[in-house]
Amino acid sequence: MPLDAETYTLDEDIRSRLRMDTSGLVPAIAQDAGTGEVLMMAWMNEEALAATLATREGTYWSRSRQELWRKGATSGNTQRVASVALDCDGDTILLRVEQQGPACHTGAPTCFSGRELTLGEAS
Amino acid sequence: MPLDAETYTLDEDIRSRLRMDTSGLVPAIAQDAGTGEVLMMAWMNEEALAATLATREGTYWSRSRQELWRKGATSGNTQRVASVALDCDGDTILLRVEQQGPACHTGAPTCFSGRELTLGEAS
Repeated sequence: MPLDAETYTLDEDIRSRLRMDTSGLVPAIAQDAGTGEVLMMAWMNEEALAATLATREGTYWSRSRQELWRKGATSGNTQRVASVALDCDGDTILLRVEQQGPACHTGAPTCFSGRELTLGEAS
Repeated sequence: MPLDAETYTLDEDIRSRLRMDTSGLVPAIAQDAGTGEVLMMAWMNEEALAATLATREGTYWSRSRQELWRKGATSGNTQRVASVALDCDGDTILLRVEQQGPACHTGAPTCFSGRELTLGEAS
């Protein structure tokens, strides 16, 4: 199936619950379905969500390239989608995925791996 | 310590790594440090991140009220922060927290609880 926005149309009930930002996007969090690790955050528009639901492959909107982007299309590090949930106010998506290989473009397991900030002294 | 933006200043090294959006905000994901559940997503500006790091209490920027907002300040459902990480490109924050009570304003354990969308047929 080609990755063509024309191919995917979002269900009207889901569309009515989505609260997109002024650019027509919502943040989408990808979480490892097995370990629970938060892998990455990317952006979805209506077509990306429709494609993700239809294909069960994590698919996002690239803000820099202004195109649909199937995670792993070039790297092979795809995301098989186990579940998709929309939050209470419809402006955030949570994907639970089976991540193939590292999720981060740096080669790290997640985009947050080893990137902790220093907390203040415990009060 | 009062929740006063003037009180909290972000470390210069952290500021230099942050890539905020045009509104000066970054999405912040809160994850339960014990169970790994993704609890909610909210927004932080520099002051919210500085306050979170300094106080170890999950603190966000309310876009509707245009003010700093300490999670649980009115509900009691506070977030004690175990760790904070900035992602690979500096535009998303991941908090691991000890959540008191339900994370969602609806009373649900998380903002995603019971809100799964229907996936297409597996290919």
